[in-house]
This record gives sequence, structure tokens and C-alpha cells, in this order.
Amino acid sequence: MPERIGIIGLGLMGKPMAHNLLRAGFPLTVYNRSPPAIDALAAAGARPATSPREVAAHSDIVITMLPDAPDVLGVILGEHGVIAGGNAGLLLIDMSTIAPSATHAAAAQLAAHGMRMLDAPVSGGDVGAINATLSIMVGGTAEDLARAQPVLAALGTTITHCGPNGAGQVVKACNQLAVALHYAAAAEALVLGARAGVAPEVILRVLGGGLAQSRAMDLRGPTMAVHQFTPGGKAKFHHKDLGIVLDLARSHGAVLPFTALAGQLYTALLQHGGGDLDHSALLLEIERLSGIVAPEA
Amino acid sequence: MPERIGIIGLGLMGKPMAHNLLRAGFPLTVYNRSPPAIDALAAAGARPATSPREVAAHSDIVITMLPDAPDVLGVILGEHGVIAGGNAGLLLIDMSTIAPSATHAAAAQLAAHGMRMLDAPVSGGDVGAINATLSIMVGGTAEDLARAQPVLAALGTTITHCGPNGAGQVVKACNQLAVALHYAAAAEALVLGARAGVAPEVILRVLGGGLAQSRAMDLRGPTMAVHQFTPGGKAKFHHKDLGIVLDLARSHGAVLPFTALAGQLYTALLQHGGGDLDHSALLLEIERLSGIVAPEA
Amino acid sequence: MPERIGIIGLGLMGKPMAHNLLRAGFPLTVYNRSPPAIDALAAAGARPATSPREVAAHSDIVITMLPDAPDVLGVILGEHGVIAGGNAGLLLIDMSTIAPSATHAAAAQLAAHGMRMLDAPVSGGDVGAINATLSIMVGGTAEDLARAQPVLAALGTTITHCGPNGAGQVVKACNQLAVALHYAAAAEALVLGARAGVAPEVILRVLGGGLAQSRAMDLRGPTMAVHQFTPGGKAKFHHKDLGIVLDLARSHGAVLPFTALAGQLYTALLQHGGGDLDHSALLLEIERLSGIVAPEA
Amino acid sequence: MPERIGIIGLGLMGKPMAHNLLRAGFPLTVYNRSPPAIDALAAAGARPATSPREVAAHSDIVITMLPDAPDVLGVILGEHGVIAGGNAGLLLIDMSTIAPSATHAAAAQLAAHGMRMLDAPVSGGDVGAINATLSIMVGGTAEDLARAQPVLAALGTTITHCGPNGAGQVVKACNQLAVALHYAAAAEALVLGARAGVAPEVILRVLGGGLAQSRAMDLRGPTMAVHQFTPGGKAKFHHKDLGIVLDLARSHGAVLPFTALAGQLYTALLQHGGGDLDHSALLLEIERLSGIVAPEA
Repeated sequence: MPERIGIIGLGLMGKPMAHNLLRAGFPLTVYNRSPPAIDALAAAGARPATSPREVAAHSDIVITMLPDAPDVLGVILGEHGVIAGGNAGLLLIDMSTIAPSATHAAAAQLAAHGMRMLDAPVSGGDVGAINATLSIMVGGTAEDLARAQPVLAALGTTITHCGPNGAGQVVKACNQLAVALHYAAAAEALVLGARAGVAPEVILRVLGGGLAQSRAMDLRGPTMAVHQFTPGGKAKFHHKDLGIVLDLARSHGAVLPFTALAGQLYTALLQHGGGDLDHSALLLEIERLSGIVAPEA
Repeated sequence: MPERIGIIGLGLMGKPMAHNLLRAGFPLTVYNRSPPAIDALAAAGARPATSPREVAAHSDIVITMLPDAPDVLGVILGEHGVIAGGNAGLLLIDMSTIAPSATHAAAAQLAAHGMRMLDAPVSGGDVGAINATLSIMVGGTAEDLARAQPVLAALGTTITHCGPNGAGQVVKACNQLAVALHYAAAAEALVLGARAGVAPEVILRVLGGGLAQSRAMDLRGPTMAVHQFTPGGKAKFHHKDLGIVLDLARSHGAVLPFTALAGQLYTALLQHGGGDLDHSALLLEIERLSGIVAPEA
Repeated sequence: MPERIGIIGLGLMGKPMAHNLLRAGFPLTVYNRSPPAIDALAAAGARPATSPREVAAHSDIVITMLPDAPDVLGVILGEHGVIAGGNAGLLLIDMSTIAPSATHAAAAQLAAHGMRMLDAPVSGGDVGAINATLSIMVGGTAEDLARAQPVLAALGTTITHCGPNGAGQVVKACNQLAVALHYAAAAEALVLGARAGVAPEVILRVLGGGLAQSRAMDLRGPTMAVHQFTPGGKAKFHHKDLGIVLDLARSHGAVLPFTALAGQLYTALLQHGGGDLDHSALLLEIERLSGIVAPEA
Repeated sequence: MPERIGIIGLGLMGKPMAHNLLRAGFPLTVYNRSPPAIDALAAAGARPATSPREVAAHSDIVITMLPDAPDVLGVILGEHGVIAGGNAGLLLIDMSTIAPSATHAAAAQLAAHGMRMLDAPVSGGDVGAINATLSIMVGGTAEDLARAQPVLAALGTTITHCGPNGAGQVVKACNQLAVALHYAAAAEALVLGARAGVAPEVILRVLGGGLAQSRAMDLRGPTMAVHQFTPGGKAKFHHKDLGIVLDLARSHGAVLPFTALAGQLYTALLQHGGGDLDHSALLLEIERLSGIVAPEA
């Protein structure tokens, strides 16, 4: 008999994940801060709950998919939180992207109550959540991961054990800095080409065919070239993630000058109203600096 | 009957290209500043020449494959140069990586003597030159490219017409900045992982499986992780190329803060004796900044 | 009759400040985490205390001079803290350099207990603390500043009301970024000169005589030139301060690419063991990048 | 009897310098590409010339004050240039700001014709030129400088022998990078203050009173705060100068990440139409990045 699953956070990512868990046959209890999302899942067969505590009381495994560390810590540690409602042995899988230090804090509190934790941030975006093709980066013990495997298998196609608690978040941090810098590379190549009179399709074709290829440029280069920035991953979340990356780097003594610069330019993008655009809109900042008109922003 | 080909510059790239042209059946005249390279090609069936002028006198199409703009301009414009020896109608194909402004200067001088020019820089490295799998970025007229096509087809697999003279060099510039930034991304991801306790193979596996993938990281990430920097493309040439990129950007009003930073770090790499390492050795500079010992450099 | 003063934190800065307060005739209660510093002040006439709470119980005005925000918040809010021991009307003057957001949090907690707060970070270093020539940047109400004036006048020569609570910390943040960038400017000028064959004394003399003058270069240029990095302000504190600056910038939407780069290079300096050197040792990082041997570090 | 002086280049700087030389009693021959400037000096007592060659023919010492290296080299080496008209023993004093490598090239050509050269770039701007208070950075032999001394004394108040030919230009390069970074520091401090709610006059007052002081901020901070960018030194010339700095650094292996970033932001300023503003308008780029409206540009 499958374990009883709870999920807390039914946003752009959490909602399709919940549907995939129902589809896979897991008994599911759901909670979200704003109630309509709960009702929609209830209509699909989930048990609605009125607090994280209630989710925990009816679950063996609780998944959290929330915006940032304060949300995760609040949901776990709060008066009506997971620790208040769960039994010893409960396994919390935090699939949010948060600072590894927050992961360690949460895991320690859970352990003090006999509960287990995995950090399991994802990449693949809302499309990956919908299609259950997420890439999942897992930090925690091999034993806990083995227990979580059937659940994670309903959500993604690539599940990687990265190391102990926090390691999943570290790898997600590495992923996010690389994606940001790949967009920076595409942006500077396109802007130099534009300024020097070469069409973007030529640049994308040649670069994509050789050592300069990147998946970010493959997927988003053509939409960048026409200023189509429907997300995908939102710039404001990438901005948040780079904050996590840079804090992590700072506390561990990693010197990341390129990522630091990217962090500043994502702040600029948010200042210019681009937070809800796709993260590839970093292009707009290089274009603004270069005096190229960016009509829609 | 095939056109008579000349090639000037028989270095790491030019030498295997010359062999490929012989193999394809072209009558070939060769020149190199240092004579032994000429002798080796002569032994393989090429006609040895004692100056660029002599090459031009025996060729319909002359290929130059030289380190930088002064070499190319010297070979074309010098007393014993191509213009001094060639007939009207000669087509010069410069496959060196030089500044687009130097391309324009050379093309104008050649045109004044009734000669034609294509800029046709390549990517793919010495392996691509040996296997005739280069990617060739061509600037010039469609007519000249059509004439050059059989020759270029003996040297590479991807031939892209980028625009008028100089456009090939512009696209090469875009390519080089993107490659440098992809190495920067890989370097910062690996260093952050190292500092935060995650094994490089985990980082490379996860990033390579998703939006953070790049060919530079696919090919060179594993060798970067073990500090194996046998070139491939040498850091000193990438350093030279970024100088071209940044001058081009400056003169055209493209603002490239990431590439400017990369240019500084490649200078640092050369200062630390890394000029003959593979360009992926940019990793060493991020490691040095982060206080990670880089034993071999 | 003068108000009774307490001071918590008797380090490099707090200790000479305490002596200056005694010298000015204020009744003084002192606390420090490590007891020997308390004994030394007690011998000079101060009342020793065993906790921040005890300091507060015997003081009308309490000064805190501590390393970072968690220390300040702990001393104010902890079980044996200022709020636990102080009377309504107590004025807390925090002269530490901490994040403005932490200032706001502390001020709110104090206000809830009828207590007042000024943020009053300083510049001028240990020499300024000893000579009572500190520059003090004050955030809070004009009324509270008027009350604090006699106390602050015993500690510094320049007292500036910057705005409401937090504004003192904001100005200190601006100060610290400017100092870091002035050291960066001096470092790059000296390194360029060294590489291009001009003696540092020539560079410092010419730059100091014109528009390129800065006090940081005036005071520290000659010691930088001979690699004498006895602090003054320690690099590790400047590193901490730049973390505050960059977090503040991030949360308020200020884009500071130069400061972000400085933050990375101070991290590098700490990684290379330079945390206890003077902050002007940023020079060593530019020298390391440029392959100039930095013998003592 | 004083030596006969020639001056080539009667722009914003050269014109007041010519007047100062007349005022000091030197026999003066003048040339400028655009004739009206010649007529104005002729009316004041100078001998007008129709070419650099004619200037040289009537002068013992020739001063050049021109925009960039190609102008200087053209005036010296051209068909109607200084070498064509001057006698052996002529001393050329180039007071333009150009690349040290161009200085070396010019000095070598002059030496081959028995002529002497000093590089003597200046700081102090048009105000310094008018008031004869320039700071003059001299490269060349002590003997040539001794000969030039009476002439330079009529133009500036601080004359520094920096080393052999080129050393004056190197020191000027160091000066220009420091000034740019001091404006960057002022800009980031003002923008952080603006975003975090502190008035610019508070920031400038506090920073100017301590270790964060710089002459650039003293003089230009108040005008930056009200967006008054009447030059002073024009942004487009500072942009040109940073190009010289970065080329010099690159060829000598000096790694200057801060200056490289400044170079990019000055390019941005020019792209936004700010080339004729004062160089302190670098502020506008930090404000643009931060989403602060910059009404006048």
C-alpha cells in the first residue's frame, strides 16, 4: 500500500505535481495559503486541509513547494506547522529552492522530533512539472531517498542523489548560476552581432552548431531574438536564486565574479519591470546598456 | 579542372588543411615563414614557394591561416606579398581570426588591384582541421563564396554565409565570447560545488542533463574537474580573440560587461603561465581567487 | 547630573571609547563577553556587570559596539539582554556596523518596551576611537540625538544626523563601498604602473596632486607600495560590511556592479589569509591576478 | 633669447595654452586643422602657419595637443609634417593623451632624424589650461626636460618627471583609471543613498569628511547630485583614455577588472548620448541600471 502523501504549496509548480501524484495513485492531502487552489485539487480527489499541521497529521511523506526559505521554515516550524502535526518517522521532502543553510536548520529541527528530511529542488520549470519530466536534485540519506523514490518517480525523470542534506540545494545553486551566465553569453553575442550588422539567426545557427552551443541558447535564443519573453522561468525567481548562490559562495569562500555581475544585472531587470518576464530577458539589460531600444520593457 | 590553390601559413591549423586540399586533388602551392613545414608539404606533393608573392603567382585562390592581423596584412600587402604576385581575379580566403576592421582594410587593397576576398575564420580546432570537420564562417559576396565552395568543402563540414566582408569575423567574435563565458560558467559552478562539498561529477551530470547544459561543459567539464588542460584551443589564442571582440564591441557601441571580465581573467591566466593550456583553464583563475590550490600551474 | 551610561562590547573600538567616557566624567557600567576586558575597565573606575541586563539596569543610555547584527540582536533581545533589564525611557545607541534591516527590527522591539534607539555607526578606526575623533553617522529622532549629544561628543568630533532609524547605517554602507572602491582604484593604478615601469612614488605624487586624489590613497598609498598592511581597518570587517552593502542594495533595487566586484575580491583576500590585514590589502588581489609576487601573503 | 615655440592643435586645451605662451613672451608659430582658430591666435600675435611642416621650420620646440595617436603620428610623420620641416635638434613635446606605444613609435622616428621628444600629457582640464595650472606628466630624458622647463612652466604649476619616453603617458593612464573609479564610487554611493532614502548632501558631507573622501567627489559630487554635467572633462575623452589604459594593461599583463567594467559603462554612456557631458555623468549609467529616471539624458 502506497504511503500517504501531503503537499503544501499549490502554485505554478505544486499544482501540476499534485495532479501527477493523484494520477499515480497516491492518497493525497493538500494545503495552500490561498484556498481556491485547494478546492481545485479536492475536486480532483485530494483531501483538503486547513493547515500544514493537518497535512502532516494525515501524511507519511510531506512535500513542500514554496517560494523561499521563510515560507518553508514557517510551514515546518510554525504553530500550525508540520512538526506540530506529524508523527515520528514522517519524511519531509522540500522541493523548493532555498539556501542550503535553511535546509540544515529545518533538517535539524525535524530530526529533533524524530522526523526525516530530503532537500529536492528541481529544474525543468512548469512544463517539467506538468509533464512529470522534472530533474530532481536530492540531498539527504540514501535510505530516505530510497523511501522517496516512488513519489519522486511520479514527478520527474531524472533523480540524482547529490550528497547529504543541503547538497541538492548546492547543485541547484550551481545550475542556476550556469543558466544565468549562459543567458549572459547569448545576450552579449546577440548584441555584438546586432551592433556589428549580423542577423541573429546567423549567430544562433553558427554558435549552436559548435563549441559555443548551450541548451539555453538553443531553446531561448530564437525567442530572445524577437523579444518574446513569456516565461518559462521567471526573472524574479532567478534573481532570488542568484541571491542564494552569492550568499552560499560568500559563506564558503567561493569567488564568483561573473555570477556577482549577473546578480546585479538581474536586479536591474527587476528595476525595469522585468521580474515576470522569462529569465532570458537578461538580454534586455545588455541591450539597454548598448543603447538598443527594447520596445516592450 | 580545379582551380590552383595556394596556402600561406602551415601551423597547427594550416598544415592539416594543406594535406586535406592535396587529398582532395587540388594543385597546391605552399609557403610558411619557417621552411621545414614547407618541406614536409612538398614531400606530400605540394609546390614549395619562397614568398607569398610566389604563392600568389601560381594560384587562382590563396588561403591565409595566420596568427593575427599584422601577419595577414603583411602577407597581402608586403613587398613580397600576394598583391605583388597575383593576377587580377585572384581570390584570397583569409581563414585567420582577425579584427573585422583589418578584413575591411585588406579587402579594399585587394579590390584596388582587381582581386577578391572572403573572410572565413573557423571553429573546431586542430581536430576539426585534421578531420576536415571545421565550421567555417564566411563574409563576402555570394558569388565569391560559390567559387570558394569546393575548396572550403575539402576543409570543413559546416559553411555559413554570414554577410558581406567582415561578417565572418564578427560571427567568430560572437562565438569566442560565448565559449569564454561558457567556460566561466562551468568554472564558477565547479568551484562553488567544490567549496560547498559536492563532487564535480555530480554537478556535471545534473547540469549537463538540463537547461544548464553547454557543449563546452560537456566536452571539457570532465577534464577541467581533473585539471587536464591539454589543448584543444590554447588560452593565448582565446586571449587574443577576446581582444578582437572587445575592440569590435567598443568601436560599435556594444556593451559587454561579462566578456570584459573574461578578458581580464584570460590576461591573468597568461600572467600565471597558462597561455599554452587549453582555454578551459580559465577554471584555474576562479580556483586561484577562491584559494583552491591549483598544483600544476 | 550626567546620565548613567552603559557600554556593551569592549573590543578594539569599545575599549578606548569606554575610557573616553570615563575621562568625560560619565558614570559607566561595562560588559564584555570575555571578562578580562571588564576587569581592565573596572580598574579604571567603571562598574563591572555580568550581563547586558545588568548593564541596562544601571544605565540611562546603553551603547553597543559589537561585531555584527546577531550579536546586537542577542544583546538587546536575549534572556539576559537590555530589554530584560532596562527601564522605560532607556536610550540604546548602537554604534556597531550592521544591516539597516536589523536596526529596524531592534528599534521596533525596544519601542514595544518603551525604550528608544539610535543607530550610530562610526568611521575613523581604532585611532579615531582612541583620540575621540570618530565620525558618527546617526539615525533616529532629533530628540533622541539631542539627548545623546553629550555622550557622542565624548567619542567623536563629527556627528551627523542622517535621517530616521537606519539612516546612519545606510550612510555607513555608502562610506564603506566608497572606501573599497578607492582602494581598488589605488591598487589598479599601482599595478598598471608597476607593470609599465613607473615607480609607485611617482604615481602617488602625481595622482595625489590632482583630480585623482583620494584620502585612502593619500594615507595608504605609500604603505600599499611597500606592502605594509598593519591595520587600521581590517579586511575581514570590510568584507562583512560589503555584505551588508550588497544586501541593502539588493533589497532596495540599487545596482552596484563595482561594489559587487569589490565584494568578490575581498572574499578572495580572505581566502588567501588576508582577513587580519588592513583593508588596503585589496592591492594583493590585483597583484595576484597580474602575476606580481606578493611575498608576505 | 627664448627658444622659438610652435604649437599644433588649437582646441579646447591648445588655444588657451597658446595664449599663455604668448603672454610669457615666447615667439610662437601656430597651426590648426580648422583655420579660424589660427586667425584668432594670429590676431593675438602668433605667426600663422599652413602646415605642421611650416610650424616645424620656424620652431626650436614644437608642442602637439591633439585628440589621439593617429593625429599625433600624422602630424609628425606625414608628408607635410614636423619631420619634413624641422631641423636636427628640434624638440617635440607631445601633450596629447595617447598610447605609450605610439609615443615610442614617434620618438623613434624623430630620433632617426636627429630630433628629440618628450611625452607630456596633462591633467587639470580646460580650467587648468586657461589658468596655467596644469599638472604635467613628463616622459623623456632629464636633459630634454630641463630644456623644456621654461616652456612647461608657462603652462602648468606641477611638472613631474615620470621616467623615460612613454612614462608620462603611463602615469596619465593611471590617473584616468583612478578618476573613473572615483566617479564610479561616488555614483554607487549616491544611488544606494537615493534608493535607501538618504539625501545626497548628507552622503557627500559624511563621506567627504573621512576616509571615503576623494577630490572627484568633493568637486563633482554636488553637481552629480543635481544632474549638472557641464564639462570639465568630457565623457567621450575619458572613454578614449580608458581604451588606452586597457590596451596598455593588456599588453603589459596588468589585470584591471574594475577599470574594464568602467570602460564598458563609459561605452554605455556614449551610447546614451552622453559623450559631451562631464565624465562624472557615469552616475547616469548607475542610475539607469537602478531604474532611477535620469531626465536630461
